[in-house]
Amino acid sequence: MKKYVAEFIGTCVLTLFGCGSAVAANTLLGKSNVVVPLGFSTLLIAFAFGLSIVAMAYSIGNISGCHINPAVSLGMLVSGRMDVKDFVGYVVAQFLGGILGAALLCVILGSNAALGTNGFGEASAMGISAGIAFLVEVILTFVFVLAILGVTSKPENSSVAGLVIGLSLTLIHIMGIPFTGTSVNPARSFGPALMSGFGSLPLSQVWVFILAPLVGGALAALCYNFLSKED
Amino acid sequence: MKKYVAEFIGTCVLTLFGCGSAVAANTLLGKSNVVVPLGFSTLLIAFAFGLSIVAMAYSIGNISGCHINPAVSLGMLVSGRMDVKDFVGYVVAQFLGGILGAALLCVILGSNAALGTNGFGEASAMGISAGIAFLVEVILTFVFVLAILGVTSKPENSSVAGLVIGLSLTLIHIMGIPFTGTSVNPARSFGPALMSGFGSLPLSQVWVFILAPLVGGALAALCYNFLSKED
Amino acid sequence: MKKYVAEFIGTCVLTLFGCGSAVAANTLLGKSNVVVPLGFSTLLIAFAFGLSIVAMAYSIGNISGCHINPAVSLGMLVSGRMDVKDFVGYVVAQFLGGILGAALLCVILGSNAALGTNGFGEASAMGISAGIAFLVEVILTFVFVLAILGVTSKPENSSVAGLVIGLSLTLIHIMGIPFTGTSVNPARSFGPALMSGFGSLPLSQVWVFILAPLVGGALAALCYNFLSKED
Amino acid sequence: MKKYVAEFIGTCVLTLFGCGSAVAANTLLGKSNVVVPLGFSTLLIAFAFGLSIVAMAYSIGNISGCHINPAVSLGMLVSGRMDVKDFVGYVVAQFLGGILGAALLCVILGSNAALGTNGFGEASAMGISAGIAFLVEVILTFVFVLAILGVTSKPENSSVAGLVIGLSLTLIHIMGIPFTGTSVNPARSFGPALMSGFGSLPLSQVWVFILAPLVGGALAALCYNFLSKED
Repeated sequence: MKKYVAEFIGTCVLTLFGCGSAVAANTLLGKSNVVVPLGFSTLLIAFAFGLSIVAMAYSIGNISGCHINPAVSLGMLVSGRMDVKDFVGYVVAQFLGGILGAALLCVILGSNAALGTNGFGEASAMGISAGIAFLVEVILTFVFVLAILGVTSKPENSSVAGLVIGLSLTLIHIMGIPFTGTSVNPARSFGPALMSGFGSLPLSQVWVFILAPLVGGALAALCYNFLSKED
Repeated sequence: MKKYVAEFIGTCVLTLFGCGSAVAANTLLGKSNVVVPLGFSTLLIAFAFGLSIVAMAYSIGNISGCHINPAVSLGMLVSGRMDVKDFVGYVVAQFLGGILGAALLCVILGSNAALGTNGFGEASAMGISAGIAFLVEVILTFVFVLAILGVTSKPENSSVAGLVIGLSLTLIHIMGIPFTGTSVNPARSFGPALMSGFGSLPLSQVWVFILAPLVGGALAALCYNFLSKED
Repeated sequence: MKKYVAEFIGTCVLTLFGCGSAVAANTLLGKSNVVVPLGFSTLLIAFAFGLSIVAMAYSIGNISGCHINPAVSLGMLVSGRMDVKDFVGYVVAQFLGGILGAALLCVILGSNAALGTNGFGEASAMGISAGIAFLVEVILTFVFVLAILGVTSKPENSSVAGLVIGLSLTLIHIMGIPFTGTSVNPARSFGPALMSGFGSLPLSQVWVFILAPLVGGALAALCYNFLSKED
Repeated sequence: MKKYVAEFIGTCVLTLFGCGSAVAANTLLGKSNVVVPLGFSTLLIAFAFGLSIVAMAYSIGNISGCHINPAVSLGMLVSGRMDVKDFVGYVVAQFLGGILGAALLCVILGSNAALGTNGFGEASAMGISAGIAFLVEVILTFVFVLAILGVTSKPENSSVAGLVIGLSLTLIHIMGIPFTGTSVNPARSFGPALMSGFGSLPLSQVWVFILAPLVGGALAALCYNFLSKED
């Protein structure tokens, strides 16, 4: 049971700190006399998400393994490192954590106008379509989960695994923020989309950020199984 | 006795380098023709605080454990990893170190007009209230101390613990600077507030940045005790 | 065979994420009312390339050693750590991976107008000549391959080697982006140059970014052999 | 003998990459329509110097220990970890390396107008006096050498020591760039000052950046000896 609590806390922290850093940085940059596009805040936001993984991996990682992402849990399930019962428990805890994280962010900001949601079309800084957004999220999640499966498969890497996974998520965000805002995590996307309200643009687009990461995570597991299998 | 000297030096370095980097960066950015909000310097300041922990963790960490923060020491006390006598000695050394760090910064700057103080209301870039500032500091400190308790509880992580704790503090600053300037450390907040002078705004608001981090640190210890307890 | 597949995937990811991050960041910065030179995006791009190595080193590194760069493979060959047959297989896989990475980037961007190509003369932000570009790339690759040979020669560094190599590539990009855009990798340069089209400037200049990294990598291997040889 | 060659190469790389990154970044930012003070490039330059240490620590560190800084070698001498003969050889190699690094930078830039020199008065972004510059450099070097002595005194930290020292140098630059440009290293300062020419401002001020780091390094060794001595 405690591992579900750990996943709940971890996903809440990831969503609150990642999305919160993004909203706060962009709010402050918006007060400048420079027309400030995302290019000025991408690196900061990328480190916020990546270092949230670092902080959580070495605290709740001791208890649950710190997936805090349904796409990661799916990769673990497909790799045979997790059973179905735990998968369901983890995913439920992760979604609840994402919702609490977004709700806390609403309280802190006193508003639900901007919550670090993901999007395509007019909600994408690069203006990409739903199809390209789906492709981008599949690729981003594939790389992220491949790195996780690789680093966690060698016991001698256990002390650096949290750093590696966190810095990989920073990479994923540097690349993906201009295109989709980077989800790679259905729970991190659903919480802020739900808090944006029924009928809101983020909630109407959130299916891409639930489905595509799951596809990318499953593909990464299949690819890693192939590559690491003894001939 | 030497461990108190170590805590004194470490807290002095953290306050001088963290707050000094913030003041210098914002002074230079203020000479630009861009109306420059904190968004341009947040990442730099966040690394200054985080890497101060890295530098100190691997030097004085050998002697005192490098808490350099009363909220961390309180978390250690509540977790039963420290006795009351050492707690008192550490906290006194930390406050004295924070005051010396702020005093050295005054000498270097030739002024006490800006010292990297924390604040709410008009002193918060996001303009948050005292109540929200309290909540933010509790959450920030909770996450920071949870990461410290987690990473230091596994002996095999001892060589990376300083990096993990430092990068966690960087995260805490990326998230918190726009809201409160990020304290999570009563000693780091009290030194600059005291040097700002009696009757100054920072000194009148410093109670939030003493109380809230202590609450967050204690909550983290209780939470970690619950999560890590064998069933 | 699987190690060639691993090199193919790794070089594809490095090219797509490194060059993709560069193009996206510069596209967004170009929408600002600030005349934005590379100085604002250099650090972000440098982390994109460096962290691509981190992510790949801990996933495909288990299978192929994660060279994902013909200049690195040449350094390994000259150091006697790799045979000629594997060298040829690795280099072919790396070039194919670089081409697929650039092709995927074209699909995502819907354009081949800017693909993170390398260059000199008018294609260099600092406006350096072909000769200086050659010198810069030799020096950059020398330092990069020297770091790789050093860190991989001590078994006790195996768990941190991927972090060290990735951060070294970040350094190489911080220094080199203003001069050549930083290649140090013939496969990463050839893919985007080819996708730019026959007769394009990047393709006409790409010989520098194929030859100079190979020279730098070979010199690093000779230098490291000299320095590490028992007297 | 090879350890002197290693120190020569390492100091050359540190000077070329650290100072070169600074000059290139500031040149490009200077082409913007924004009045760009150092605040926009500080973090990038800080990572350039810090990651130069990372790259060198894991390559030549195997051979010489990678001091590449006379103030570090003095700290090692005062700590009794190095004999006088080696100290002299290291320092000579370091100064020659710093000169070659600055000379290569002149060749690449085609000019010696800006070489990443250190300074005070009109040459300091914050406009500090010679006395305050001396104090700042003593403090910066004290913290840097304290971190080096600490992390290298525990064998179990050997695999992360290069990362810790590099990130500590990044911290030192985040704090010091606005004040003095950050020397903490007589060899890194003397090379660019010499190449600036006889009668130039940097050469007339370089005594501060030779003396102050040596004082700071010696103080750090005395302090660490006191703190780490068994009672």
